[in-house]
Amino acid sequence: MGDPNNEPRAYRRPNGDFPRNAGDPLVLPPGIDSQTFKKFTLRVADVIGSENVTVITKTEELDKESYMDPSKVHDMFYVVDEDYFVSSAVVAPRNVRDVQDIMKLCNEFEIPVWPFSIGRNVGYGGAAPRVPGSIGLDMGRNMNKVLNVDVDGAYALVEPGVTFTDLHEYLVKNNLRDKLWVDVPDLGGGSVLGNTCERGVGYTPYGDHWMMHCGLEVVLPDGSLIRTGMGALPDPNGDPSLPPHEQPANKCWQLFNYGFGPYNDGIFTQSSLGVIVKMGIWLMANPGGYQSYLVTIPRDEDLHQAIEIIRPLRVGMVLQNVPTLRHILLDAAVMGDRKTYSNSDKPLTDAELDAIATKLNLGRWNFYGALYGPPPVREVMWQVVKASFSTIPGAKFYFPEDMPENTVLQTRNLTLQGIPTMTELKWVDWLPNGAHLFFSPIAKVSGDDAVAQYQLTRRRSHEFGFDFIGTFVVGMREMHHIVCIVFNRKDREQRRRAHQLISTLVDDAAKQGWGEYRTHLALMDQIAGTYNFNDNAQMKLNEKIKNALDPRGILAPGKNGIWPKSYDKEAWKIPM
Amino acid sequence: MGDPNNEPRAYRRPNGDFPRNAGDPLVLPPGIDSQTFKKFTLRVADVIGSENVTVITKTEELDKESYMDPSKVHDMFYVVDEDYFVSSAVVAPRNVRDVQDIMKLCNEFEIPVWPFSIGRNVGYGGAAPRVPGSIGLDMGRNMNKVLNVDVDGAYALVEPGVTFTDLHEYLVKNNLRDKLWVDVPDLGGGSVLGNTCERGVGYTPYGDHWMMHCGLEVVLPDGSLIRTGMGALPDPNGDPSLPPHEQPANKCWQLFNYGFGPYNDGIFTQSSLGVIVKMGIWLMANPGGYQSYLVTIPRDEDLHQAIEIIRPLRVGMVLQNVPTLRHILLDAAVMGDRKTYSNSDKPLTDAELDAIATKLNLGRWNFYGALYGPPPVREVMWQVVKASFSTIPGAKFYFPEDMPENTVLQTRNLTLQGIPTMTELKWVDWLPNGAHLFFSPIAKVSGDDAVAQYQLTRRRSHEFGFDFIGTFVVGMREMHHIVCIVFNRKDREQRRRAHQLISTLVDDAAKQGWGEYRTHLALMDQIAGTYNFNDNAQMKLNEKIKNALDPRGILAPGKNGIWPKSYDKEAWKIPM
Repeated sequence: MGDPNNEPRAYRRPNGDFPRNAGDPLVLPPGIDSQTFKKFTLRVADVIGSENVTVITKTEELDKESYMDPSKVHDMFYVVDEDYFVSSAVVAPRNVRDVQDIMKLCNEFEIPVWPFSIGRNVGYGGAAPRVPGSIGLDMGRNMNKVLNVDVDGAYALVEPGVTFTDLHEYLVKNNLRDKLWVDVPDLGGGSVLGNTCERGVGYTPYGDHWMMHCGLEVVLPDGSLIRTGMGALPDPNGDPSLPPHEQPANKCWQLFNYGFGPYNDGIFTQSSLGVIVKMGIWLMANPGGYQSYLVTIPRDEDLHQAIEIIRPLRVGMVLQNVPTLRHILLDAAVMGDRKTYSNSDKPLTDAELDAIATKLNLGRWNFYGALYGPPPVREVMWQVVKASFSTIPGAKFYFPEDMPENTVLQTRNLTLQGIPTMTELKWVDWLPNGAHLFFSPIAKVSGDDAVAQYQLTRRRSHEFGFDFIGTFVVGMREMHHIVCIVFNRKDREQRRRAHQLISTLVDDAAKQGWGEYRTHLALMDQIAGTYNFNDNAQMKLNEKIKNALDPRGILAPGKNGIWPKSYDKEAWKIPM
Repeated sequence: MGDPNNEPRAYRRPNGDFPRNAGDPLVLPPGIDSQTFKKFTLRVADVIGSENVTVITKTEELDKESYMDPSKVHDMFYVVDEDYFVSSAVVAPRNVRDVQDIMKLCNEFEIPVWPFSIGRNVGYGGAAPRVPGSIGLDMGRNMNKVLNVDVDGAYALVEPGVTFTDLHEYLVKNNLRDKLWVDVPDLGGGSVLGNTCERGVGYTPYGDHWMMHCGLEVVLPDGSLIRTGMGALPDPNGDPSLPPHEQPANKCWQLFNYGFGPYNDGIFTQSSLGVIVKMGIWLMANPGGYQSYLVTIPRDEDLHQAIEIIRPLRVGMVLQNVPTLRHILLDAAVMGDRKTYSNSDKPLTDAELDAIATKLNLGRWNFYGALYGPPPVREVMWQVVKASFSTIPGAKFYFPEDMPENTVLQTRNLTLQGIPTMTELKWVDWLPNGAHLFFSPIAKVSGDDAVAQYQLTRRRSHEFGFDFIGTFVVGMREMHHIVCIVFNRKDREQRRRAHQLISTLVDDAAKQGWGEYRTHLALMDQIAGTYNFNDNAQMKLNEKIKNALDPRGILAPGKNGIWPKSYDKEAWKIPM
């Protein structure tokens, strides 16, 4: 334990060197023996109170499976063994100063720390750390306040523990919902800050969450605190007796992102360069009118034409928001489990999918969109949308009132106007003990690319014994193609197949020039390895910055494939 | 001259240590003697050809004053002595490989290098380097191609030398202007890439250029080459026999910004961390209809009410683009020089400003906006805009055809639909030998803030003997308040007053919590010093990253106040 500015002691390899003692966690942090670990937890408890420190000693603690009550120490949708991606202890800072102190302690002890906000990064690893035995930094348990909502500026300032549902309810309670909307992802239970900084998306015109963030407060790996953008310029009402994180903020912090000099915010996304403790997010002004709709697209092979229709409408902002084109099974899975539809244990055939579509009065593909603005504006948009999709033979158009039985349409009607729900969680129950992995390649908005990605992912899914379940989420110029690999997490062999499937797909995709925007812990190294232009020049840059800001490599080692110099990257391969 | 990875030799201070010889440049690079400089220029000429290397030996070379033919070695609107901010030589790489080789040579010789694209960063220092004697890296002379315009994806990929006018003309020549619009700033002659990476703005709905960029190719200070975002994922048609910068690009490079892992693009803006050699920029789909308009606002004191009207309309996207609220003198200056209006040598009084407004049939403030979309959409927006501004007594509404004599309205009518012009350059001729500095604080979109900034900047302008000329440029949630300090650059005393004025304003503004978004070379240190939250935590972060990526401090030392460890920051204060 030396000066945090010095070189680290030694390469970190998976633990196993030290004899285990009573009271030890399931997994000790790498290179840390039982006694040192105990000393560390006592020191942390001195700082934040022992009630905010939980050592994970028992496998049973991993078994709290409810999504609403995640154990926050591992990945509730584990694809490798349940006790592989697991924290040694979870510590919950009470405030920013605590986070700074924890960073300093982790430097002193050279213990890795893995921050999470709410722990609902479902499909991508939940609350679990990349390096087994890391300290889980539970940012959301105590730091969960909506710090400010400004109506004039149409923004909120939030702590990590604020969920989309929290923020929406805050607006409702304060009678602000008629003025301001939150953009929400499929599930309302995740952290606004966490989702945004992992570059998640939602479905209103403000669907690109990162584009709509404004201003960060960040604890750097050495424990120092910055405010980005205009936040770096102190407010004139600052009070020297207050600690930095309690200083009044610059009035433009949530109004203008860029500040002066290099615009650093992006390096703190999908990153291990800092712990974001406050974030500004722009809210959407009530557009003065709203109408959601569904277009059912009958045949599987209509995908090509549908995407070709969507592209110019989206680029031209006739499609004003982030709409989705969903495969029939995603909708079907929300409305029932697999057994509702089939007794087959083979991937469902085209005939079976057609039958499900008929039964649900849906198409093989279903397009969920919305119109925003006063009636004359919506009318113009709707005429164009309807005329465009009508060129697909058999396409049908529905408003929510036309289909009260369609849970998905009723839910999307809420989601697309920024009202959070938990309904879409249901598709995970497609299989018993359902869990899922997301395979999420970015695609050009073109019929050819969509069909090629669909054919590849469906073929591989079938090859590995899974149904294809997926959706195309249409951004400004591209689509997030989200393939939902649903598996039974109690079935070791199925887990292994799911893992093999996604790993195969990553390589398949890279060969076509397709890359994923985000991934599960188990795939981070592999995907980072596909972004290897010019002899991994980007990774070399990322490593240089990582080592400069975190010389002891304590913050989230391995996140998104970036390993600090203090880690032996090769030693941390994931068992399959 | 050692290994570029080693520590630098010594602190860099302004030169003056070495005897000058015939053939020497006006200013040698710091710490470099005559002989070493000659050796360096010969080595560079070996790489890029002697026709692409110009040593600046004569003051006369600084006197090419035409904006259209900048000498590209200094600041044509010099506020300190003409020969202060001046390059020792200008070198113009022919391609990306040349840029890489030049970086390596600069590391070897420890010579600072200052990149510019076109050199028209007017009001902010032109092509001039922060450190006198730096090598000017003229990115635009040879690297000036529109590499790609993709209609489906609505984007362009450009080299540094492509101006807004070039890109617009490319669209016109290829019959694409009916499909795609370029967003343009006030003047069309600047570099698309340069403006975007300095975070300049334009006036269509795509006015936030940085928000609308997508994908960079960057040469790092050590000469290595990265592609950001999806560009880091190689295209499957790559050819191992080609150098990296000629490899085919990933098809999603210009479609999706974020890629995988930390989103690094922002650190290359207003920055000294890399030389951007290619940039993607999104183009706006033809909105299907367009109508620009002018609202004249009669009284000076209407500013408060006007801004309060603008805020909710802009946040609610009824104002769909980046509109401007211009002070009467900015419009007046485009339509005539100072002598046209007054013989007074004192700052113009309210009575004189009223007389000018009457003469020009304008208000004391004038709002230039536009409506986008098919007629029914525009009609809805226009009703709201008109009703809102009609609450200001005496406000009048004009379309371009109503005021053919109003050069500004005719010009804004072009600018707001993405057609570049050079007309607005005229206001610089307000004074003889006119030059200008921009003072550009960010403001909350509120009447109180606008009035407070206006009162302060007008009062100080008068105090230092200048007219107030300015405009509020309304972004998504804030305004860029652009104060144009026009001075006679041949008048040393006036230059000194202009410099003192802006320096005073920077401090005044910081005391109110207002910060500038961009600045002239001479003010960079001062403004960086105002973004000093928590004991300059942001600057310490910037310096850490700078020193990690550029250990010898060769790339743009001092840019935006960031000095590499190899420079003695205190020694580089600007003479006033």
